Amino acid sequence: MEKRILGLDPGLAILGFGAITCKQSPTQVQDTLVDILDFGVIRTSADVDVGQRLCILFDDLHTLIDHVQPDLVAVEKLFFYRMSSTILVAQARGVIMLALAQHHLPYVEFTPAQIKQTLTGYGNADKSEVQEAVARELDLEEIPQPDDASDALAVALTACMLTVD
Amino acid sequence: MEKRILGLDPGLAILGFGAITCKQSPTQVQDTLVDILDFGVIRTSADVDVGQRLCILFDDLHTLIDHVQPDLVAVEKLFFYRMSSTILVAQARGVIMLALAQHHLPYVEFTPAQIKQTLTGYGNADKSEVQEAVARELDLEEIPQPDDASDALAVALTACMLTVD
Repeated sequence: MEKRILGLDPGLAILGFGAITCKQSPTQVQDTLVDILDFGVIRTSADVDVGQRLCILFDDLHTLIDHVQPDLVAVEKLFFYRMSSTILVAQARGVIMLALAQHHLPYVEFTPAQIKQTLTGYGNADKSEVQEAVARELDLEEIPQPDDASDALAVALTACMLTVD
Repeated sequence: MEKRILGLDPGLAILGFGAITCKQSPTQVQDTLVDILDFGVIRTSADVDVGQRLCILFDDLHTLIDHVQPDLVAVEKLFFYRMSSTILVAQARGVIMLALAQHHLPYVEFTPAQIKQTLTGYGNADKSEVQEAVARELDLEEIPQPDDASDALAVALTACMLTVD
């Protein structure tokens, strides 16, 4: 069965998204089983207040979900670094989870280490190795830009490889 | 000018609210200048997933705002303790800020220390001293329950005392 998966790399300033179609294989993903649908980013400007930025994120996310019509959403798990950034990202993530729940969309979450492990075979792979794996799996000649979109495709691919109907 | 202020003590499991009317005084709040409108809590159960809980919070908050029709919202600032709790509260806070922005509501934020300082005269006051100050300012014979509602009334009173038209 073909599944539409929307990958999200959460953030307030920039939220990456990457949508793919995926034919499930319990053991491995072959090139022909995955197709790219769309990728890009939702940006919100630091010139407007946080509430307005969350509104933009929320509205754009609803539009994106209506456009992609995903069967499953895959979200990169929060990575903890500085507390102030974590709170901003967690606030954005609250709005993302609200939008997904309003659409009754199932979602899965993966840590950066799970994504690296799944796409490259080892959990300590660096960013460029993951990006190259994304391009290879999706038969793209160039690495999708910006990085946040590539990261979102990586989490969508991880969901394709790890979730079985 | 009379102002309706909605105080919020953010949380995912329990969100406290307290609504007051407040006649502004640049120097102090006198008993006759403040009236209580409503107080209580919005609870979401840990038995349902986070997305559903954020949906309930979001919907109930819209209903509350429509009911109270506040001119200003006062929110207690995030208090950092454990990272996992902080992320849950920050996610709820993202949904709260979204709802406020959708209603084009101005909001102010106060730290626990600012609230204590404003209501009791010193920033290290303990919880019961703040609760007694809330009851005294609002001419209540008993301390509003549960604690989260009392905390929300405290932040609303702080906004009343510190914000001047």
